[in-house]
Amino acid sequence: MKKRILGQEKSQLVADWHALERVFIRPENEATRVTLVKYMEQILFGLHEFLNKNVGITEEISLKELAKHFTDTRIGKDPEKKLKDVITDIIKEIAPHAVNVASPYFVGHMTSAIPFFMVHLKTIVSALNQNVVKLETSKVVSVIEKQVIAKIHRLIYNMGEEFYQAHVQNTTTSLGCFTEGGTAANLTALWVARNAAFPPKQGFRGIEAEGIAQAFKAYDVDRAVVLVSIRAHYSLKKSGGILGIGNQNVIAVDVDERNKINIDLLRQEIDRIETSGRTRIIAIVGIAGSTETGSVDPLEEISAICRKKKIHFHVDAAWGGPTLMSEKYKHLLKGIELADSVTIDGHKQFYMPMSCGMLYFQDPSIMDLMAYHASYIIRPGSVDLGIKTFSGSREANSLILDSALKIMGTRGYALLIEHGIDVAAEFASEIEKRENFELVTRPELNILTYRVFPKSLKEAYEAGTDEIKKAVNERLNEINRIVQQAQRESGNSFVSRTAFKMKGFPEEQVVVLRSVIMNPMTTIAILKAILDEQEKIYLDWESGKLKNKGRFRIADEMEKKG
Amino acid sequence: MKKRILGQEKSQLVADWHALERVFIRPENEATRVTLVKYMEQILFGLHEFLNKNVGITEEISLKELAKHFTDTRIGKDPEKKLKDVITDIIKEIAPHAVNVASPYFVGHMTSAIPFFMVHLKTIVSALNQNVVKLETSKVVSVIEKQVIAKIHRLIYNMGEEFYQAHVQNTTTSLGCFTEGGTAANLTALWVARNAAFPPKQGFRGIEAEGIAQAFKAYDVDRAVVLVSIRAHYSLKKSGGILGIGNQNVIAVDVDERNKINIDLLRQEIDRIETSGRTRIIAIVGIAGSTETGSVDPLEEISAICRKKKIHFHVDAAWGGPTLMSEKYKHLLKGIELADSVTIDGHKQFYMPMSCGMLYFQDPSIMDLMAYHASYIIRPGSVDLGIKTFSGSREANSLILDSALKIMGTRGYALLIEHGIDVAAEFASEIEKRENFELVTRPELNILTYRVFPKSLKEAYEAGTDEIKKAVNERLNEINRIVQQAQRESGNSFVSRTAFKMKGFPEEQVVVLRSVIMNPMTTIAILKAILDEQEKIYLDWESGKLKNKGRFRIADEMEKKG
Repeated sequence: MKKRILGQEKSQLVADWHALERVFIRPENEATRVTLVKYMEQILFGLHEFLNKNVGITEEISLKELAKHFTDTRIGKDPEKKLKDVITDIIKEIAPHAVNVASPYFVGHMTSAIPFFMVHLKTIVSALNQNVVKLETSKVVSVIEKQVIAKIHRLIYNMGEEFYQAHVQNTTTSLGCFTEGGTAANLTALWVARNAAFPPKQGFRGIEAEGIAQAFKAYDVDRAVVLVSIRAHYSLKKSGGILGIGNQNVIAVDVDERNKINIDLLRQEIDRIETSGRTRIIAIVGIAGSTETGSVDPLEEISAICRKKKIHFHVDAAWGGPTLMSEKYKHLLKGIELADSVTIDGHKQFYMPMSCGMLYFQDPSIMDLMAYHASYIIRPGSVDLGIKTFSGSREANSLILDSALKIMGTRGYALLIEHGIDVAAEFASEIEKRENFELVTRPELNILTYRVFPKSLKEAYEAGTDEIKKAVNERLNEINRIVQQAQRESGNSFVSRTAFKMKGFPEEQVVVLRSVIMNPMTTIAILKAILDEQEKIYLDWESGKLKNKGRFRIADEMEKKG
Repeated sequence: MKKRILGQEKSQLVADWHALERVFIRPENEATRVTLVKYMEQILFGLHEFLNKNVGITEEISLKELAKHFTDTRIGKDPEKKLKDVITDIIKEIAPHAVNVASPYFVGHMTSAIPFFMVHLKTIVSALNQNVVKLETSKVVSVIEKQVIAKIHRLIYNMGEEFYQAHVQNTTTSLGCFTEGGTAANLTALWVARNAAFPPKQGFRGIEAEGIAQAFKAYDVDRAVVLVSIRAHYSLKKSGGILGIGNQNVIAVDVDERNKINIDLLRQEIDRIETSGRTRIIAIVGIAGSTETGSVDPLEEISAICRKKKIHFHVDAAWGGPTLMSEKYKHLLKGIELADSVTIDGHKQFYMPMSCGMLYFQDPSIMDLMAYHASYIIRPGSVDLGIKTFSGSREANSLILDSALKIMGTRGYALLIEHGIDVAAEFASEIEKRENFELVTRPELNILTYRVFPKSLKEAYEAGTDEIKKAVNERLNEINRIVQQAQRESGNSFVSRTAFKMKGFPEEQVVVLRSVIMNPMTTIAILKAILDEQEKIYLDWESGKLKNKGRFRIADEMEKKG
């Protein structure tokens, strides 16, 4: 592959002003145009066929083999290839070794098929190349962004027409912001919460200006903490590290048997913090769709605690937020409207292309706590959206969401959401029916975890001592690692794998298989086939048949330890 | 406009499973397909004609008028419009009110025309929808990303073949990362520098884990600072705020007459900090292409100071980095290879679509200081790129850069870079020739500032007292604000405006016009026409002709104060 990509034609290609102008403006000749038209037509009007034809779910070539082809670190002085050959290489050489996340058999991660029109919208956004940091490079697109932010804010908070008329195009207030993804959104939420917890006062210019050490002195504390559940996304811990409060001060509270934050333990933790003193709780985070189990924390109860204690209440609804569009299931997120801030990802259940996150605030003025200005743009009082975003220059993903909402309506999105939740419930029943499987976490939304648990081991487990139970669990961990890896490498389908502590195994990690059902083409029949394959892999392995299939080839590279 | 967008056809559209499947998979009917083909063909194969035909540079409709059309904050339950109508509306109703940043007359910001093939590449990336946070959702694309990171690293550091073979596909080291933009890259650089300044030691788990207050105790300091010049991008100050050191501790050192950090003042500042004690300097930032003036700091001298004092040396080359591809001008960035970290933006002089930033580190292990793991992805020892990035889920912009490098070669990029620098120099000469203008900052790269400075006022200024000089400057500020706004609103061309202190006016802001020459279609003839228009606007205003043109219509909305 390397040879083909690097060798041919190089000597013929010279970068000169004439060639450059052509490459800048339009295809250099008819042959290039024909090639580009062919692929663009396939991509834009036959997206899913294109992906199924050209892109593997996962495939056999090992990572080590693959990596060998990509070790040339020189940039050619003259062009290496013509445009049409570069595009052809992507389609013919690179795409087959990418991952067909759009396959209905790819049910392992929060990345899935997107509607074909999303690619059209991204193409338009990319062609317009607006920079939403400032009005001068985006104009109407900034205005549309403010409108779509108000639409999603209304979906969450439903504050009434008067409120929205006052704020939708208000240049001094802000209902939220777009970010690159959920990490930047969660970071921004905790950034604002941190600043709100240590505001300016006599002799202190505020934590944003003076920093954490001075803030602690001004408010006579030694520590600032954030409380989350052990199911929280790792971006929250990372945010604690970045924001300077220390990632160990993002304190993880244990969950109940439904994977929701244990409210009693949360209260105890708060008591402990208050008793020990000199610590400020800057935020408590409720999860609306945890990454690993899809579980939703008791948002109303957390809100009540936050209100009483005057603590910022953030909801990480990166995954679950769009559930609000389903009349059937929006009750699952009850209490989200009480949050001070809410993260929702566009590239998850709004089915937008990578990368789009969003953050919403109940208080339209709270983002003043992280406003920045510059002389050449984002001047005080201007409409420039860059004043109150983590990012500077930024593409106009808001235009994609705005268009998608018009094309789909809430009902269109609700169909997708409801399909995921309903099929996940069916899948859970199917798992429970099978004697060689165990349902580990029951789906509340459209995520569930389970594991291969051979019938034979179940009996040993039930009757066993703690010591035996532990040994069985270790054996199960091994089985499930093997099954997940072998299935991934066989290239037909993909479920992901994670590990967490669970009831009955408080001391050790339990390896589980994780399914995320968001592709509308994923049916229960497909999920049954995935279980069948897993069972077969296990049985083959148990009987020694899998031995020489080199099942750890990729795996060895992908992870040095389990 | 609003009526057209919201009214028509609504009642006919119903979201049902059948409609949804069609909208997910392919155009619902031939009429939709025909419309989409028409626009996609224009966008993909006639990008610049399309933009010139459909998109205004800036236009007359005031922001207030525009905003009135975008105050509907409800999301429809059923689809509001058919796909083809949504796309048509974007082209016909929205694009004309966006900004044609691709016009050769748009020379005001760092956003410009992009080669048409960039839109094709973005379309492919969006269709593949890979998520580079983890190998399981990106596979070969992660490997390509590592390779292209090594290519740019080599462009900066040129460490030799052995080094690159050791690291290009090494799963435990990292030469850099992609980010959403320059802000996230600068933040990540200072994040790593902060962590390197307060590493773990006996009794202290490191600043990332324990936070800033504990770090200060462990290292017996009261303050951490970053030193930059007054020309530094605002993202550095913002990073100080986010990282918890306090944005007032991002200390701005004055510049010399060429807008480069004044090394003597920098040394004095360091002495002052060291004398006062209990303060750690975590980084000094050199700028390679400042946002306002395009100036490059004396990187070698800063490096020497940093090496001696063991301080992290970061270079913000978000703008200027790609100058390294020009044999003719790469000497302007001499010393960049001595930096501990370097920011370069893809969406600036790599001519990629919004939004793409990058960060490079000399030390392939330093990013361990900000590594994060999660059980379901980015497990320790895995290839998952998300371990060492600010972001989580992230689109594969690396594939666009990799392809562009092959299509353009360094020589192709060099042509663009050299055109900008050469034309900027010509433009500067032209400004100096004109009696009603003053060149304020001479271009080193392709950015310059100037102002309308009528001949009559020049004489008054030269002969005047300090008081008169000040009065003249105030008058000039007014003139230049008016000229820039009126030109922007007339819709033919766009230069930006900023304000800074300059020699002779140490106490006050000097309003200047700012030109960024990066569009290969921008010629000196176009720039002369821009000057002609500015001169005419000034003369019309001076003679009272401009009075009733409502020149502050948009301006009033865009900025409450100057």
